[in-house]
Amino acid sequence: MLKITKPTMVLDRRKCLRNLADMKEKARSSEVDFRPHFKTHQSALIGNWFRKAGIHSITVSTVSMARKFCNYGWKDITISLPVNILEVSEINELAKELNLNIVTESAEALQFLESNLTYGVGVYIKVDTGYNRSGIGWKDLKQFSEIIKFIKGASKLEFIGLLTHSGQTYHVETRTEIIEIYNDTVLKMNYIREHFQDDVPEMKISIGDTPSCSLVQKFTGIDEIRPGNFIFYDLMQYSIGACSMDQIGLSVACPVIAKSPQRNEIVIYGGAAQLSKDFLFKSSGDRIYGYVVLYEGEEWTRPVKGTYLARVTQDHGIIKTTGELFNRVKRGDVLGILPVHSCLTANLLKTYVTLDGENIDY
Amino acid sequence: MLKITKPTMVLDRRKCLRNLADMKEKARSSEVDFRPHFKTHQSALIGNWFRKAGIHSITVSTVSMARKFCNYGWKDITISLPVNILEVSEINELAKELNLNIVTESAEALQFLESNLTYGVGVYIKVDTGYNRSGIGWKDLKQFSEIIKFIKGASKLEFIGLLTHSGQTYHVETRTEIIEIYNDTVLKMNYIREHFQDDVPEMKISIGDTPSCSLVQKFTGIDEIRPGNFIFYDLMQYSIGACSMDQIGLSVACPVIAKSPQRNEIVIYGGAAQLSKDFLFKSSGDRIYGYVVLYEGEEWTRPVKGTYLARVTQDHGIIKTTGELFNRVKRGDVLGILPVHSCLTANLLKTYVTLDGENIDY
Repeated sequence: MLKITKPTMVLDRRKCLRNLADMKEKARSSEVDFRPHFKTHQSALIGNWFRKAGIHSITVSTVSMARKFCNYGWKDITISLPVNILEVSEINELAKELNLNIVTESAEALQFLESNLTYGVGVYIKVDTGYNRSGIGWKDLKQFSEIIKFIKGASKLEFIGLLTHSGQTYHVETRTEIIEIYNDTVLKMNYIREHFQDDVPEMKISIGDTPSCSLVQKFTGIDEIRPGNFIFYDLMQYSIGACSMDQIGLSVACPVIAKSPQRNEIVIYGGAAQLSKDFLFKSSGDRIYGYVVLYEGEEWTRPVKGTYLARVTQDHGIIKTTGELFNRVKRGDVLGILPVHSCLTANLLKTYVTLDGENIDY
Repeated sequence: MLKITKPTMVLDRRKCLRNLADMKEKARSSEVDFRPHFKTHQSALIGNWFRKAGIHSITVSTVSMARKFCNYGWKDITISLPVNILEVSEINELAKELNLNIVTESAEALQFLESNLTYGVGVYIKVDTGYNRSGIGWKDLKQFSEIIKFIKGASKLEFIGLLTHSGQTYHVETRTEIIEIYNDTVLKMNYIREHFQDDVPEMKISIGDTPSCSLVQKFTGIDEIRPGNFIFYDLMQYSIGACSMDQIGLSVACPVIAKSPQRNEIVIYGGAAQLSKDFLFKSSGDRIYGYVVLYEGEEWTRPVKGTYLARVTQDHGIIKTTGELFNRVKRGDVLGILPVHSCLTANLLKTYVTLDGENIDY
């Protein structure tokens, strides 16, 4: 077994590589581009897993992440957060070194870039197909028309297409609803594309969310997928049916530091500062911050029944369990936590170890 | 104004230093030891503010933090997380270099330390006075008795006293309730102390939570306070009445990256990866992830009315506001967010800048 002394992200490399191979094969057979989102893992070495799989185009969320992966040799990057014009110098530097795409919903931002960039960038227009986070409402053809016109007349901006993130798929309860949201998204994106068919026949459509990308069997009517979370998955994805328990490739090994016999509670070193505060609800209304697994040889077990991470403070986690596990576990033992949201967990802990003992940087 | 290009923690040094001076003066006039918790800021330079105020004893939550502050010259440290025996080598190294105290609720852990340490450590017994996170239940005199007996007979362990964290003060709605919890905590701690008065007359009592330490005017019946959050405060503390709005010394400057006119929403670069996912509830049941302030000269305004951070994803924040602010704000502007939980925000962003322009490391 691994030598763990404090909270440590543990990867099942076999599961992660299978998740990667499956998604890549689905993109290939659907003939869509696969531009995985690296905000989930943020790791140079995990990035190399993708490179070995023949992937050379990626998505990141911020300019800082783009800089990081540029330095690791990635030369085709889309920054998916609406463009932050305050980082125009950094964007210009990146545009000099690689094929950079930015995303926006604003003529204001594009005018600023056109005036202030020396090197050209590709532009996706962000579409709001119902998630209501950011983007131009899909029906607002007038606004799309203005922005497209501006881009076509600009010298530093190249129009690529439409981009959306149907994050509403994270808030459903069944697989059917996810597929319905995906179908609805594709219809809305194509409504826009068809309207501008004569002006910009090359307009691409890019979609992003892991739930849709995981459950749709064959992509039609789109050109690119940008899932990120699928490399690890997590309990959130499991709870909405986007993955099976056997696909979850990330756990966090946490030392047992205290026990409370009067409540069958096990206290671990591992809380909000390691796992984040994302939670699911139990049917009782109680919160679940993670499930508990045991490390056995070079794998982890399925979640222990009747056992879950019920509370987290900065560095403490409180596991509610049955008398059976409670009695077996000693202070100094290590328990695995399947996190609710692997992206936020990875952003906190930053380094990984694989079940077979390789250390993986951030 | 500061040059901000991406999410940046901004400190009002004047407010922080006043929070520090007030707490120190209260400890002095009550004749209790002041051992501030450094998990809130985790910064060497902010640590120096405490040192300049004459403070030489600190609390941290983990062995890693103890190592960090040891390297910055702190030589009297209590690690407040129940002792993680898997880090016994690191603990032993620290015990060699400084006056180290550990906290535990377990004879099992102490036996391990006694057998495995070369250098001595001070020991606090963790008491559960009603927070139900960890610690020996305050009524369980038999267990206290066994542990005290073991420590008294051990050669590497020196008994210091009883330690508790009444974190239930974070979940109340009025100042009166906080004071009631504090009084209840002091009674329960002294119940234990009185029972062991003859055996261990030197037994100290240490309490920790910022709400109690902020609202109690004079401490009696205790020997030490360990608040941490008070240096910055935050909306959580404000919401329970533990601080005023003018005491909050930390904000996060976030670039405006998009706007959604159909919903009067402003999208900022700044989400769960910068602010954490801690939230408060509005009376409507909606969540509040932060309030919005404006930077004006070398200060920030009071929160803008009718305006709050309503949603966060990894790097996005969605501010709901009125037409008035919505119309004034442009992409590329910078808004300040008062975070719900400053400790978790600091743990994520790691570096600070002061309103007067000093860069502060982690």
